[in-house]
Amino acid sequence: MQPVCVLLLSINGFEVQKQNCRWLLVTHKPCTKDDVIVALRNANGDAVLKFEPLVLHVQCRQLQDAQILHSVAIDSGFRNSGITVGKRGKTMLAVRSTHGLEVPLSHEGKLMVTEDYIDFLLKIANQKMEENRKRIERFYSCLQHALERQSIIRSYPKEKVNKKINAYSPKKKRNQEKARDRCIAEENDKELENNDSPGISAAVFPEDDEDLVLTCLW
Amino acid sequence: MQPVCVLLLSINGFEVQKQNCRWLLVTHKPCTKDDVIVALRNANGDAVLKFEPLVLHVQCRQLQDAQILHSVAIDSGFRNSGITVGKRGKTMLAVRSTHGLEVPLSHEGKLMVTEDYIDFLLKIANQKMEENRKRIERFYSCLQHALERQSIIRSYPKEKVNKKINAYSPKKKRNQEKARDRCIAEENDKELENNDSPGISAAVFPEDDEDLVLTCLW
Repeated sequence: MQPVCVLLLSINGFEVQKQNCRWLLVTHKPCTKDDVIVALRNANGDAVLKFEPLVLHVQCRQLQDAQILHSVAIDSGFRNSGITVGKRGKTMLAVRSTHGLEVPLSHEGKLMVTEDYIDFLLKIANQKMEENRKRIERFYSCLQHALERQSIIRSYPKEKVNKKINAYSPKKKRNQEKARDRCIAEENDKELENNDSPGISAAVFPEDDEDLVLTCLW
Repeated sequence: MQPVCVLLLSINGFEVQKQNCRWLLVTHKPCTKDDVIVALRNANGDAVLKFEPLVLHVQCRQLQDAQILHSVAIDSGFRNSGITVGKRGKTMLAVRSTHGLEVPLSHEGKLMVTEDYIDFLLKIANQKMEENRKRIERFYSCLQHALERQSIIRSYPKEKVNKKINAYSPKKKRNQEKARDRCIAEENDKELENNDSPGISAAVFPEDDEDLVLTCLW
């Protein structure tokens, strides 16, 4: 679930097309100007620097599970998340953000920017990488909170739910409030995202009212 | 349904935050280096050039309608499209692509790139704008084809549907095949998109089995 900072080379002009590209540099860690400069030495086409944030695909047993996950994703700042329902009812949630960068750097092997600009650009990319890490943590906290709440709602008759929710110990209640606070997506949490991000896929099947099983598909 | 090429100014450092930004230049038409250079004269913070492709929000009467639209959107190349189902069942489809650019240009009022680079960048942005226009046309064609097909499926008993579909005149069949061909999304149609795009919202309510009513919400 790490964000990725990559240099992508397109050998067919402006259109960045996956088939005709090779990766010059792919890293899940902050990178330096020198890393990029060295990678660009191998570029004889059009090199593009892309920062690609988290993409998580979750297969859900039912639409309700996808709705819960979708709500958590949006509240955590992954504002381009969406549900896909196949013709046979296969329900997937794609967690996507808008927190990226796509910056053309060279054309036909010729570097179009200065090294100072690359340094400036990497500060931004590395900052986005760190911000993305925080958002992943926020998503995890929000998901735990949502599942805890769902387990209560599903486990008790409706009339008892509110009573049960309000019956937490002060400490647990404070923790809930903290978790809820972490779930509040600031309006300025606008992020960029690329659909082609090396993403994570998982299957979410509630085994009972209280657990979700996450199975990594790749 | 025009794509937008904008210059976005962030006055709070690297993080591009909508609240603290003002638009230096917003255009739905191809723009030139001079347009951007003039706009940048007003920038005393961090200016970012963004190309933002189509965003279309469609409220659907039922999930099935959203599934049809979602399938059309994906097949047309809008690969970040997704369905949202609210707690009260409000079903929305967001048509999103991945066909964008986000390029930091200046820091604290200082231009970090050359005018030649801006010229190079605008060729790419303008090309993406044209590509986006084509994809919007493809989406419209695919939608017409899908609705025509749905109207047949909904209007006839199941056992007659295939017979009816296969009973087209050769000309109509050829037109269908052409439309279907236009709907095939090339694997290399990977696009970038920003969630904050000035989008279009619409409500899709099938008034009967054969029609959809599109109502612009803003």
